[in-house]
Amino acid sequence: MVGATIVADPTTVHREAELAWSGVTGRISYLGPVRGPARPGDLVGAGRLVLPGLVNAHTHAGMSLLRGYSNEEPLHRWLERVRAFEVRMTRADIRAGLRLSLVEMIRSGTVAFADMYLWDSGLLADVHDAGLRVLAATAVFGYDAVAYPAASPQTGAQVLDGTPALAAEFAGDELVQVTFGPHAPYTCGAQLMADVAGRAARHDLAVHIHLSETARELAESRERHGCSPIELAAWTGLLAGPVHIAHAVHPDDDDTARLAARGVTVAHCPVSNLKLGAGIAPVPQYLTRGVTVGLGTDSMASNNTADLFEEIKTAALVARGVAQDPTAVGAADALRMATQGGARAFGGRLSGRLAVGEPADLVLLDVTAAHATPMPDPVAHLAYGARGADVTDVVVAGRPLLVQGRLTTLDEDGIRDEANQRVARILGQAD
Amino acid sequence: MVGATIVADPTTVHREAELAWSGVTGRISYLGPVRGPARPGDLVGAGRLVLPGLVNAHTHAGMSLLRGYSNEEPLHRWLERVRAFEVRMTRADIRAGLRLSLVEMIRSGTVAFADMYLWDSGLLADVHDAGLRVLAATAVFGYDAVAYPAASPQTGAQVLDGTPALAAEFAGDELVQVTFGPHAPYTCGAQLMADVAGRAARHDLAVHIHLSETARELAESRERHGCSPIELAAWTGLLAGPVHIAHAVHPDDDDTARLAARGVTVAHCPVSNLKLGAGIAPVPQYLTRGVTVGLGTDSMASNNTADLFEEIKTAALVARGVAQDPTAVGAADALRMATQGGARAFGGRLSGRLAVGEPADLVLLDVTAAHATPMPDPVAHLAYGARGADVTDVVVAGRPLLVQGRLTTLDEDGIRDEANQRVARILGQAD
Ligand SMILES: [Zn+2]
Ligand SMILES: [Zn+2]
Repeated sequence: MVGATIVADPTTVHREAELAWSGVTGRISYLGPVRGPARPGDLVGAGRLVLPGLVNAHTHAGMSLLRGYSNEEPLHRWLERVRAFEVRMTRADIRAGLRLSLVEMIRSGTVAFADMYLWDSGLLADVHDAGLRVLAATAVFGYDAVAYPAASPQTGAQVLDGTPALAAEFAGDELVQVTFGPHAPYTCGAQLMADVAGRAARHDLAVHIHLSETARELAESRERHGCSPIELAAWTGLLAGPVHIAHAVHPDDDDTARLAARGVTVAHCPVSNLKLGAGIAPVPQYLTRGVTVGLGTDSMASNNTADLFEEIKTAALVARGVAQDPTAVGAADALRMATQGGARAFGGRLSGRLAVGEPADLVLLDVTAAHATPMPDPVAHLAYGARGADVTDVVVAGRPLLVQGRLTTLDEDGIRDEANQRVARILGQAD
Repeated sequence: MVGATIVADPTTVHREAELAWSGVTGRISYLGPVRGPARPGDLVGAGRLVLPGLVNAHTHAGMSLLRGYSNEEPLHRWLERVRAFEVRMTRADIRAGLRLSLVEMIRSGTVAFADMYLWDSGLLADVHDAGLRVLAATAVFGYDAVAYPAASPQTGAQVLDGTPALAAEFAGDELVQVTFGPHAPYTCGAQLMADVAGRAARHDLAVHIHLSETARELAESRERHGCSPIELAAWTGLLAGPVHIAHAVHPDDDDTARLAARGVTVAHCPVSNLKLGAGIAPVPQYLTRGVTVGLGTDSMASNNTADLFEEIKTAALVARGVAQDPTAVGAADALRMATQGGARAFGGRLSGRLAVGEPADLVLLDVTAAHATPMPDPVAHLAYGARGADVTDVVVAGRPLLVQGRLTTLDEDGIRDEANQRVARILGQAD
């Protein structure tokens, strides 16, 4: 691509630059001044802003059939309704939701997502075929719990036993990584968490878990375990290995120190946390104290879109408003969370930056619209002005998944029709 | 239009309905079940959601050349930079910014805006010709202050003297209303505010003013006047007539009671308040206590887009997060603010609802995309999922301003090019 403005990372902007990659390795081979005219087949550069592909640090992509299903009920009622919907979903329903999410993620510039839901070989192959990167954990709610009765008869114990084999099956896959996914302390308990910590160490696998989402979770943890959820995770050994935690809305001072010292990656999910009334995570404090923070949309049961540009904007704005300080979280901070921050959860595989030798995971945005005019600061535009609908092209590992607004790997109309039909059937069964 | 889902107001949704209006009166003549097949020239109904046109309750449309110019500086430095840019703007620059804003507003579904900046016959005619509705106030910063030296040599006193004549000039215009615009207590002072209250009563005009935006403004008002900015406004008589106030972020209990009792309309500007670190207005309290609240984007110096869907979503989310209560502000509340709430500032002229006899001010949204699939609750989709880019058609007073994504009254490419050229010139002069 020739002649575009390229935001290689939040502090490195190349104007009128060229970017090239190898179709063989899928890695960036050149980034710098324009070397010559565009060639046929090159991505359009004029009027485009290029950025590193966005990383959704926490979602449940298989849940998108629940979009808009419960929007402002108290948390316990929301949980009941979500659960009642989920137990009716077959594996085919979950697959339809996953594929709907893949469409939406590609269209809004997401190239990789850390997920906790139901995963098996076929569903991982769906992601691989669509061309996105996934860090996939099947959620476990206890040894005996059968989380997805209509979709998979497996108990939590069986999921834990089967996870290493599933990881091994995709060991050579550039796009797919498998982790353990104990849902949360309040569903799994301390013993299972300790067990997972041991299994993760033995099999060299990471762990993805929800921690410290609500004030109620914190209070109940203190009552039941005498400590915060994050401290409990530390006690069980779960923070010793690579661990990725969603939410972390209610840390105490020691918790923040723990997260920083252990190199834990945090998935901040501002829209979900706001929508469910969970609260507002202390992101400025995390960034100041060296905690790695990514941005997640969480599921379409607690957010209505998978558009990470909304999370970027919300993360920056809310931190500034709560602090009553316009310097609390800046555009570069917010963009860094949505790229480099989330990438850290993928181990060494992703950097979230555009540089020679890094994977060719990139997004092109149309910046000719009125809402992008003028654009004196491309990074500020990405944080505060851009939106998923501006994305025109997406490349992952050198493979174009969206070309001038057309998806190359997914049948969008068919996926939408199937999703609507399945929701009608599920809701027809309901209540 | 035939066969669409029509959200007539946040609690009235018609499925597979028909809406018709008179081209002569510009008012809705039918809303109900489909009476027959679509005719040639009808708006496309299938795959569309119809809603009342959105009302931007507070902006400074002539400032859009400042988009992205200062994004995370402390408030005093931001003010200095904005001011340094503004004093270089000629009337032609302000007109170019206004026209850029008109493009962006139409494209994102806004049909009416309450504005405080520089206004004269020609600029008001620009809005009329573009086909939007405006409640226009020229900002006054004191009797002797010349707010826009490069654009207009008028002092505040001259603006105040000239406002009734400008209002009279557009008295018969369906789209244009003129008000007084004393900027804020801390710029204008109590005497000028009292003077404006008297002039407004004599000439039967409304007033638009910034009140209680920051904690610092509140503290300084208490020190200087011994009362809050809202109380000061009451003492000067400014709340006696129709008055529309921007921000109202820091009211005390008495202030809230005053706003409710006087029927004051409040323009809540959540994105601007968050971005500048001004704080978070107590919207749930306002709604509970009967204060009329609209939603505003404020200017493109403190917000990067004029997309009211962002304000709707942010208003609902932030209130829920701060309260740690998912029922604090609901989708219907947020949508009502962006329609009926803002409409109240326009006097009896607008209702913000779709109903027979009301102005045909309506917006069509594409709801076939992945992020709108499924859509079990159209109002929730409008609040949490929709975005300006989904808007396909806009009608104001029966006149189509956007038809299947094409603007009918404005030369978008020319306006963008002119905006970019003018910014380059202004920034070239700078520093
Ligand atoms: Zn989650
Ligand atoms: Zn303002």
